[in-house]
Amino acid sequence: MDASLLELIIPIAGLAAVVFAIYLARDVLSRDKGPQAMQDVADTIREGADAFIKRQYTTIAIFAIVGALVIFGIISFVETEDVADVPRLAGLPIGILPALAFIVGAAASMASGIIGMYISVRSNVRTAAAARRSLVEAVQVAMRGGAVSGFLVVALSLLGVWGIFTAYQTFVADVTVREAPFLIVGFGFGASFVALFAQLGGGIYTKAADVGSDLVGKVEAGIPEDDPRNAGVVADLVGDNVGDCAGRGADLFESTAAENIGAMILGVGAFAIAEVAGWPTPQAWIFFPLVVRGFGLLATIVAIFFVRGREDEDPMNMLNRGYWVTTILSVVGLLITTNVMMNTGGVVPSNGIPAWIWFFGAGVVGLATSVAFVYITQYYTAGSWRPVKEIAEASKTGPATNIISGTAVGFETTFVTAITIGIALFASHWLGSQAELTNAAGHDVGGIFGTAVATMGMLMTTAYILAMDTFGPITDNAGGVAEFSRSEAGAREITDRLDAVGNTTKALTKGYAIASASLAAFLLFSAYIDKVNLIQTNRGEPLLESVNLANVEVFIAALIGAMLVYFFSSLAIRAVGTTAQSIIVEVRRQFREMPGIMDYTQRPDYARVVDITTRAALRQMVLPGAVAVITPIAVGLLLGHEAVAGLLMVGTIAGVLLATVLNNGGGAWDNAKKYIEGGHLTDDAGNVIGKKTPAHAAAVVGDTVGDPFKDTAGPSLHVLVKLLATITLVLAPLFIR
Amino acid sequence: MDASLLELIIPIAGLAAVVFAIYLARDVLSRDKGPQAMQDVADTIREGADAFIKRQYTTIAIFAIVGALVIFGIISFVETEDVADVPRLAGLPIGILPALAFIVGAAASMASGIIGMYISVRSNVRTAAAARRSLVEAVQVAMRGGAVSGFLVVALSLLGVWGIFTAYQTFVADVTVREAPFLIVGFGFGASFVALFAQLGGGIYTKAADVGSDLVGKVEAGIPEDDPRNAGVVADLVGDNVGDCAGRGADLFESTAAENIGAMILGVGAFAIAEVAGWPTPQAWIFFPLVVRGFGLLATIVAIFFVRGREDEDPMNMLNRGYWVTTILSVVGLLITTNVMMNTGGVVPSNGIPAWIWFFGAGVVGLATSVAFVYITQYYTAGSWRPVKEIAEASKTGPATNIISGTAVGFETTFVTAITIGIALFASHWLGSQAELTNAAGHDVGGIFGTAVATMGMLMTTAYILAMDTFGPITDNAGGVAEFSRSEAGAREITDRLDAVGNTTKALTKGYAIASASLAAFLLFSAYIDKVNLIQTNRGEPLLESVNLANVEVFIAALIGAMLVYFFSSLAIRAVGTTAQSIIVEVRRQFREMPGIMDYTQRPDYARVVDITTRAALRQMVLPGAVAVITPIAVGLLLGHEAVAGLLMVGTIAGVLLATVLNNGGGAWDNAKKYIEGGHLTDDAGNVIGKKTPAHAAAVVGDTVGDPFKDTAGPSLHVLVKLLATITLVLAPLFIR
Repeated sequence: MDASLLELIIPIAGLAAVVFAIYLARDVLSRDKGPQAMQDVADTIREGADAFIKRQYTTIAIFAIVGALVIFGIISFVETEDVADVPRLAGLPIGILPALAFIVGAAASMASGIIGMYISVRSNVRTAAAARRSLVEAVQVAMRGGAVSGFLVVALSLLGVWGIFTAYQTFVADVTVREAPFLIVGFGFGASFVALFAQLGGGIYTKAADVGSDLVGKVEAGIPEDDPRNAGVVADLVGDNVGDCAGRGADLFESTAAENIGAMILGVGAFAIAEVAGWPTPQAWIFFPLVVRGFGLLATIVAIFFVRGREDEDPMNMLNRGYWVTTILSVVGLLITTNVMMNTGGVVPSNGIPAWIWFFGAGVVGLATSVAFVYITQYYTAGSWRPVKEIAEASKTGPATNIISGTAVGFETTFVTAITIGIALFASHWLGSQAELTNAAGHDVGGIFGTAVATMGMLMTTAYILAMDTFGPITDNAGGVAEFSRSEAGAREITDRLDAVGNTTKALTKGYAIASASLAAFLLFSAYIDKVNLIQTNRGEPLLESVNLANVEVFIAALIGAMLVYFFSSLAIRAVGTTAQSIIVEVRRQFREMPGIMDYTQRPDYARVVDITTRAALRQMVLPGAVAVITPIAVGLLLGHEAVAGLLMVGTIAGVLLATVLNNGGGAWDNAKKYIEGGHLTDDAGNVIGKKTPAHAAAVVGDTVGDPFKDTAGPSLHVLVKLLATITLVLAPLFIR
Repeated sequence: MDASLLELIIPIAGLAAVVFAIYLARDVLSRDKGPQAMQDVADTIREGADAFIKRQYTTIAIFAIVGALVIFGIISFVETEDVADVPRLAGLPIGILPALAFIVGAAASMASGIIGMYISVRSNVRTAAAARRSLVEAVQVAMRGGAVSGFLVVALSLLGVWGIFTAYQTFVADVTVREAPFLIVGFGFGASFVALFAQLGGGIYTKAADVGSDLVGKVEAGIPEDDPRNAGVVADLVGDNVGDCAGRGADLFESTAAENIGAMILGVGAFAIAEVAGWPTPQAWIFFPLVVRGFGLLATIVAIFFVRGREDEDPMNMLNRGYWVTTILSVVGLLITTNVMMNTGGVVPSNGIPAWIWFFGAGVVGLATSVAFVYITQYYTAGSWRPVKEIAEASKTGPATNIISGTAVGFETTFVTAITIGIALFASHWLGSQAELTNAAGHDVGGIFGTAVATMGMLMTTAYILAMDTFGPITDNAGGVAEFSRSEAGAREITDRLDAVGNTTKALTKGYAIASASLAAFLLFSAYIDKVNLIQTNRGEPLLESVNLANVEVFIAALIGAMLVYFFSSLAIRAVGTTAQSIIVEVRRQFREMPGIMDYTQRPDYARVVDITTRAALRQMVLPGAVAVITPIAVGLLLGHEAVAGLLMVGTIAGVLLATVLNNGGGAWDNAKKYIEGGHLTDDAGNVIGKKTPAHAAAVVGDTVGDPFKDTAGPSLHVLVKLLATITLVLAPLFIR
């Protein structure tokens, strides 16, 4: 097959995913919305979510426009000084291309967040209604609702990168296929910029509402979760949508976009070798990442039809079945792509095995890493294994030992995470270097390209993972809707089961996001060095040959990078604490001043709590966001381009590990509570220690502590890590001294 | 003055400190031991502490002997292969010199731990007795008891390094003054090896006993802290001595030893320049670090006499007065030393200012950093400032928000820590580079030597800081003895005040230890590169020019280094949790089976709890200790000498920041509880929320969580960071490929 024919898979798969998402959306929207009581609460949730998203995205849009103007000004100012022959759009200053890419990336990210939210606030009630009839139907509604998000986010990112790449190459004078990947990094920066604020704002909102209403309702007033007497409960349900759906959608949108562009930049190195050597389709090395992701989308479309099963089956099995179908089809897609696109014109490395086979191996390493993280996360956060049991046992001696034990578990999870990432990086780098791609300067390009292929392999399943992830908040919301509208016990039992599964899928997604961020870190870092050296070559300055930790500037920047991760998390966690306290004060006031609430004769003022949370969350997202954006720029300006690379690398390592601690610790606390609620904890005499015991109260404390860890700070760190990469990539010209 | 004359200050100051310590010990021991009830409990504590220390140090001694044999074997095997002209002792294999240094370092560290313990278990009861008469006398007894530790630890480390250096140079054939610093790194490794296990075992013991008896006594049974009815309370008092005194003594012993040797290794670079240029006293650049520390000891001797005041004065003021005296006299000592020893024979840098003035400036930066950390730690952990108040406020809404708020504070403290360290490193490096010491290869040696001088400046006050630190557990114990022996209310009020001050001084020491570890990291790292390049030069192999984070092996090693810090802390924290739970179970059993305990008619079985804690703590220290030792060796063997440098650097950054989080978070939680107990927290109407309120219970949870953070994992991380440096320094020949 011809490589340029295979490139057609990019628009085809992208459009097919969009069409399929529309089909799924129509399917979900056509379903039964349940009795009026359900629809009423769903409408309230939708209104709250709409109001928040509208205000949040307005704020973010303003930030993004300012950001674009700054980029335009800086790049134009810095680069025009000493670069004459750079590509230009209609004679405008050269900052226009990255600034435009930034705007398009930001807009596409915002669109994917809004779409995800739109469908999830409509799937929740339909899942709750379906649960009144059938488990399988409820799973399908929630999964299809989630898949709409998954497909649109991934398709938008694929079409966006491809579209802007093609547009720049076609419509801008002098842009070659070698230069275009560098010019579109602004797209990734725009996406991470929006994702940062979306994840922060949504994450603060959702967890402040969750923590606040749990503490004041479950713990203080002793009423169940999601009880309609709790004025904070609607805000909590709104939060599931704005934090978990919109936030995670923006997060994975930018992951796929930034990592894709990074892989294309590394592809330029392979392209140069292919061109010099006269191999048949040199540009295929650059398009490879896009084609691989196209196949991933097609694999996911097929897999959605495998999400089905028997009424008495574990819902997790149904989802796992689809995941394995996606993975296996992805391997096939990877095989086709590497075979066709990595054409060395018959040249074979000295080991006798063609280059494409080595890269296929690297891609499989990426897919295997993804599978490994799915199971690692399950081990650490699911109730059937040692870590969660240990925390549940520690709850017997009170909240302090629960917290100590959970912290120990969270810290412990870094071990297997780091070892797995280390092995994956080492293996994919080794496999890639066996392909013997050596550039004109005598450097091995294959090793680093191997890690890029592994990252792309890993990202093939993103749409499916994102669908599973969005399944989580939809079922969580469905449970809330069922509880709130006092639905039948059978339906609530089904939504409870789905909710537990949703907790697991949400945890899996975080493990997946972390693993891909770590693999990608190395590739984005290499892309940064490539970009710096492209500029240095243009300027006739010496190249950046190493990022030397023994330089005092690099060491200081590395220290600041590691510190940034803690400081940023501190601001994010404090934001949740502050916002939660204002919710607690308000709900307490309502309990005190409206005595009819407790016997259902008075309706709590839900809207007031929603409004308080919205204002506070938007105010609180500004400081951590600003710190994340300003720190790398300040360090780059003060300490230079080598030092900022140290900040990027060590900040990434620190961020990945702290996010692992926060995500897994939080997930384990959550499930230790569920473990006790499920009646699995017993005393020495074998009696069950269940709900309403001191041990359960201790576990609730742990769960509450874990909430801002796993749903605000942790996911925001994923975005931070990638923002560091895209910001340094785009602003590299500014830092070179 | 002649530089070699000034070198005499080393043995003089060392011996003077020993004599002065003996004087102080005799003074303390001659004081009143109080009524029989006090002496009884003090005897029980002493017996428990002796039993623990005996068993612990026997175990550590066995480990140390094994360690020495392994070093002997490895170094002899690796280096004899290709190094012919290395110094030898009596024709033995070359591993004998580092192995011997290791044994001496380990023995000296154990001796300083035992001495510290010996005096502290005798000062506690005398402080309690003095508190029955006078605040000032109680402060003096506790401070002098602490100073015995401080002087002996620092003097032993100074005399040890000087002694083994002189011995190797004098008695071993062919050892030049240039080679000797490299041969004595084993001393530092031996010291860190012992410190690791001493700090881990003691830290686990003290916090398990503290957490266990607080939870089961204060929280569950509702009886006061240190109440004699609680069977865990003697173990808790024993723990103060074995963890805080012996552990911290070993920690600072190895800090001063390892950093001193590292500075001497960097001095070799300056020595080479001085020798080539024909400056008058080239060896003075190597002896400089020892002389500076001698002056620090003399300054501290004078300062001890300034610890006095009025009965109504804040005891912290008395201690601060002595600290400032130490600091100011240290500046004078630094001025003399740099002026005399950094003699460039009239050669002046191009900026016209003599080299010694630049280095004097770097030393002042070190002293200023020490002062800065004293105040930073106070801000974050003392009740009069925002962070502690914030945590106390958050306690109003329960333990979950208390924990969330404390975590946010802990994370936040990394900001000012990293910025201060960054500035100190940058400034001392810049000052040093102004001295224009350029070696034969054209590299600047002055910059890195500037950071070494700063570290030495910082370490001048170690003896005083250690005295203040040991003041903490002595007063803590005195309070326990007073409470336990049901002493007069007036005496208990005084010991409570001293205990609060002791909490602050303990926190200060940790800030100081962290700051010196970070400054030292860069110098020890440079010493490692020097050592590798010495070996490479001997072998005729290419030098290690940079530690390049863009190398995949270095990146993976860096990731593992950062992970190690979390994994090690996880094991340490879990050890405390596990041990605490067994104490809780035992004390509960005693309450249940011995009903007479509650009305004082039955005496609890203290010895059984002490025994359970001893066994558990010693068992639990093995795994984290082994992980800390094995990981750098495994990474060095698998990934090579450049990668292990990445592990060292990034592990240090991660360790310093995590220790900051754990120490300051824990300290802030502790003082938030004390803030509430002091009646400073009020509700909206202005009513005091004090003891026995839900807010206080929440604050107790936070305090308990913070205990293993700040007294087990945090301080153990200080040791881990320096162990990484000494282990790679000693085993460097093994890692070179």
